[in-house]
Amino acid sequence: MSISKPYLLFLGDVKDELAAKTAHGVLDWRPEWCLGQISLPGCKAHTTLPEMNLAEAAQEGVKTMVIGCVNAGGVLPDHWIATIVKALHNGLDVAAGLHIRLGDIPAIAKAAEEYDRKLHDLRFTDLTFPTGNGAKRSGKRLLTVGTDCSVGKKYSALALQKGLSERNISADFCATGQTGILIAERGVPIDSVISDFISGAAEHLSPATKDDHWDVIEGQGSLLHPSFAGVSLGLLHGSQPDAFVVCHEPTRSTMRGVSTPIPSIQEIIDQTVMLGRLTNPDIRCAGLAINTMMLSENHAKSLIEELGEKHKLPATDPVRFGTDPIIDHICAEFKLV
Amino acid sequence: MSISKPYLLFLGDVKDELAAKTAHGVLDWRPEWCLGQISLPGCKAHTTLPEMNLAEAAQEGVKTMVIGCVNAGGVLPDHWIATIVKALHNGLDVAAGLHIRLGDIPAIAKAAEEYDRKLHDLRFTDLTFPTGNGAKRSGKRLLTVGTDCSVGKKYSALALQKGLSERNISADFCATGQTGILIAERGVPIDSVISDFISGAAEHLSPATKDDHWDVIEGQGSLLHPSFAGVSLGLLHGSQPDAFVVCHEPTRSTMRGVSTPIPSIQEIIDQTVMLGRLTNPDIRCAGLAINTMMLSENHAKSLIEELGEKHKLPATDPVRFGTDPIIDHICAEFKLV
Repeated sequence: MSISKPYLLFLGDVKDELAAKTAHGVLDWRPEWCLGQISLPGCKAHTTLPEMNLAEAAQEGVKTMVIGCVNAGGVLPDHWIATIVKALHNGLDVAAGLHIRLGDIPAIAKAAEEYDRKLHDLRFTDLTFPTGNGAKRSGKRLLTVGTDCSVGKKYSALALQKGLSERNISADFCATGQTGILIAERGVPIDSVISDFISGAAEHLSPATKDDHWDVIEGQGSLLHPSFAGVSLGLLHGSQPDAFVVCHEPTRSTMRGVSTPIPSIQEIIDQTVMLGRLTNPDIRCAGLAINTMMLSENHAKSLIEELGEKHKLPATDPVRFGTDPIIDHICAEFKLV
Repeated sequence: MSISKPYLLFLGDVKDELAAKTAHGVLDWRPEWCLGQISLPGCKAHTTLPEMNLAEAAQEGVKTMVIGCVNAGGVLPDHWIATIVKALHNGLDVAAGLHIRLGDIPAIAKAAEEYDRKLHDLRFTDLTFPTGNGAKRSGKRLLTVGTDCSVGKKYSALALQKGLSERNISADFCATGQTGILIAERGVPIDSVISDFISGAAEHLSPATKDDHWDVIEGQGSLLHPSFAGVSLGLLHGSQPDAFVVCHEPTRSTMRGVSTPIPSIQEIIDQTVMLGRLTNPDIRCAGLAINTMMLSENHAKSLIEELGEKHKLPATDPVRFGTDPIIDHICAEFKLV
């Protein structure tokens, strides 16, 4: 995958920061690739980048506009099309992680051809997968799972991969969603795979490897989310993780996009162990990644301590306080370094 | 969906009867639509229909050749293409439930155009689905689930729908696979839906309806099958069944296509209740459908009695011994008739 840089991050007119998680993800993990943001009237998401119009962006040297926001279902609202066409007209390529190809929208296809620009569809892959086979593969795997969507599974996986690498443990980040794929510039968009092949695609994503290598796999959805649990289960089975980390955002009461209550951390641990055993009988929980973005530092620290003691597991906010407690635990559990 | 009848059932050169389950399903449930079979050298599957070549079939009035066999992954072997082209050349339409469109194979597309014949792709739908929302819908739903693939979930659902209708209980069969769709001439091919939309597609399949109407939904895969559990879970969540029937084939030791041991009936009951509760807290097991095809009648009867007593649930082989025990139980449990 080769997307021309730097990027202008399109925020649309989404109603909260979580809906712009692609923009935030790319900016947080690849700040050197991002020059500016562009938003539509009424937008409730913001980054720390300067707002630019398309002419300014082109003048500043931006090469690609990245659609940095997403709706459930990955649908492109009609009123975003004009900005995409204008970006192409201003000489930018466009990258998006939608469930339809940008080129399937006639106005966008026409403009891309007319101005000879590239369209990147991050949620599509040219790969085909076999059905999963459930056989044990060599190497070690860590999967981040969640009590909900958008709770920090990707950030935790990226941070854990970084933490392992810093201790000279061989580790790769395996991206499964459009933002992760933008950051890693490879991966499998697991929620857009034909459902017969979910676990097969996950098996492809983290193939057999050296015994001391860790693939850190970005989780998707939640086993207890009524919209996406099928994806989460196929990914769990195909990933056959040796260890998983539960990601949790403590201020939510219902799951994102539905009225289902947030499950407890313990429920997610129990379900993940019970269901994950099918393809890895030794699966175990290796820690808790608590997303404390909405809490004061003191509150965050006391909550993390409380949850760690309650579950007898290392707990941290990987972004705010680092991954050391979880990495220490993994090193001890799996006798690393 | 309108496929011209009668049919010639293509059996390919598959290695066992289970691989020809589409042919058997259509013949068993819609015998009046089926005139003959055609097989390739080495084929291990058979039906009770006369073997015909394509010229004979055309002469007998066959209008469509139905690909009646399937591989894991829904791939079309190259050496089947010549027969499909020849069928088109002989004036037949062709219907198949593959993961690729027949028309995406150049030789088939060319022949269909040249001879002006129709290609039916049962595993594709023009429908688009929202993501599932998990909200409770009016009406009643029964889902067949399995300890494995190819254990009788479709046959049981068809038989249970028939059994309910015979007692003047309003009931529809909701097809979720290519064979069911061929039989019902409608449905959603759930395993070929983009994985983000599995539960949304299942919600679409059995929409809100009258309080006393039953949708009998064809299950897919198994919650404990490492290749397909994601599909099974998304279908369970989207179906939000009030009742489920466990389908089981007692002579198998490992699950189809993989080396994973067959789970017990109790494991499937427990998992289905635990996971199904997310979208229907009142979910309950309504019976056991034991596929006794491989057993003598005496052995079949004693095993059914034993399993019914063990699980304290009505048990039967719906195809061999009818559905009365399960229908009686449902009528009592849900205070019907």
